[in-house]
Amino acid sequence: MVSDRDRAIFEAGIKLGALYHQWVGTPISRKSAVTVESAIEQAVILQPFVEEITVHLDRDKMVENSFGYSELSGLMLDVEIVTRVRFTYCRARLLPKDGYPLMQIVECYAITKNSRHR
Amino acid sequence: MVSDRDRAIFEAGIKLGALYHQWVGTPISRKSAVTVESAIEQAVILQPFVEEITVHLDRDKMVENSFGYSELSGLMLDVEIVTRVRFTYCRARLLPKDGYPLMQIVECYAITKNSRHR
Amino acid sequence: MVSDRDRAIFEAGIKLGALYHQWVGTPISRKSAVTVESAIEQAVILQPFVEEITVHLDRDKMVENSFGYSELSGLMLDVEIVTRVRFTYCRARLLPKDGYPLMQIVECYAITKNSRHR
Amino acid sequence: MVSDRDRAIFEAGIKLGALYHQWVGTPISRKSAVTVESAIEQAVILQPFVEEITVHLDRDKMVENSFGYSELSGLMLDVEIVTRVRFTYCRARLLPKDGYPLMQIVECYAITKNSRHR
Repeated sequence: MVSDRDRAIFEAGIKLGALYHQWVGTPISRKSAVTVESAIEQAVILQPFVEEITVHLDRDKMVENSFGYSELSGLMLDVEIVTRVRFTYCRARLLPKDGYPLMQIVECYAITKNSRHR
Repeated sequence: MVSDRDRAIFEAGIKLGALYHQWVGTPISRKSAVTVESAIEQAVILQPFVEEITVHLDRDKMVENSFGYSELSGLMLDVEIVTRVRFTYCRARLLPKDGYPLMQIVECYAITKNSRHR
Repeated sequence: MVSDRDRAIFEAGIKLGALYHQWVGTPISRKSAVTVESAIEQAVILQPFVEEITVHLDRDKMVENSFGYSELSGLMLDVEIVTRVRFTYCRARLLPKDGYPLMQIVECYAITKNSRHR
Repeated sequence: MVSDRDRAIFEAGIKLGALYHQWVGTPISRKSAVTVESAIEQAVILQPFVEEITVHLDRDKMVENSFGYSELSGLMLDVEIVTRVRFTYCRARLLPKDGYPLMQIVECYAITKNSRHR
C-alpha cells in the first residue's frame, strides 16, 4: 500500500527533479538572481501538494564568462520544499555536497486532525 | 528517520520530475521517436539508484504542426521506473490520466539479503 | 563575408530559439505570469548583443489543468527582441501564427556613427 | 526587406539556440553519447529550413561526478548546421572558444536555379 507519507516524499522528489531540469542553463547574474528566485518559487508553488518553497541562488558561484554573465547551474541551487498529502508533510532539500547537487529528505511528520484545527 | 523505502520513493520522484522537464519541448516525429526513447532511457539509467527505466512515447499524440513535426509533450510520455536503495525497490509510473501527466508510485518492496544472493 | 547585419540577425535567432526551449514547460498561472515575464526578460538581456527584449505571456491561453495551473507553452509567448552588432540593429518577433509559434525578422537597420553620438 | 540570406541566417541561429537550451543538463556518459548525438540530430532535422545537422559531443569533457556520470554542458557541444531558404544556404557552428560555447556563421551561399537541377 502507498501511504500519505510515501506520497508526500514522492511529490517532494518530483518537484526538486523538475525544478532542477527546468531552470538549469538560464542566463543569470547577481542582479537578476532575485527575480529568477521568485519566478522559480512562484512556478513550484503552483503545483499540487506543495506547501512551501524557498529558493536561494548562490551569488558566489555566479562567475562571469567572457560576455559578462553566468548560467544557472545545479550547484548554485539551495532549495527547501515542503510537500503535504492530507495530514503528512515532507521537508526536502537540494543543496551542493562535495560538488554534487544533492537532494535529500530532511524530515517527514504527520499532524493529528485535531492539532490542525486548533 | 528516513528509511530505505523513503529514499527509494524520493529518488523515483526526482527521476520522473527531472525527465519530464528535461525532454518536454523536443521536436519529435514517429520516425525519430525510437531514438529519443532510447536517449531518455540511457540518460536516466546513468543516475544513481535507478535499476530499470522504460520509456514509451505515444505516437498517436504526435500530431504534426504546419511544418510537419510535433513537440514532445508530457501527455506523450509513458514511463516506468524502478529505483533501489539497498534492498528496497520502488516502482513508479508516469502516465496520462484525465488529460494530466500523472506520476504515481506503483509499488515498493524489500527483498531479504539472502534472497538476493541466492 | 559575414556582415554586421548578418550577425545581428543570427544573434536574434539564437536568443529566440534559446528562450523558447529554456522556458517552455514552466508551471504558470495568471498570477505568476508577470514575474515569469520579468525573469525571462532579465535572463535574455544579460546575453551579448541584446539591446531590448519584451516578453508578454498570453493569459487567455493559460487554461488550468485538473490541478489548477498551466504550463508555459510556445503559443503563449509574444516576444520582441532587438539585437545590435556595432551600428546595425535587428528587430525580431516570436508570435503565434496559425497555431505555430512563428519567429520572424521584423526589420534591420544601420545607424551612422554620427547619428549615434549626436 | 528581408532576404533569403537573412532568413537562412536567422533560422540557423534559432536552431542552435534552441538545441543548446533543450539539451544542456541531460545526464550523459561516454557510452550513451552516441545515442544522444543521434537523438539531437534527429530532433533538429525535423524542423523547417534545416538541410544538415551534425552533432559531436566532446567525450573528454565528460568528467564523472561522484555518482559516475556527467551532465551535458554547452562546452561539450560541437555542432554544425546547414539551413536553406529557397536557393540560399547558411552554414553555422557551435564550438567552444576560450571557454565559451560560441555560435558563429561559417558561410552563406546561393546556388543558381539551374545548378540545382543539373
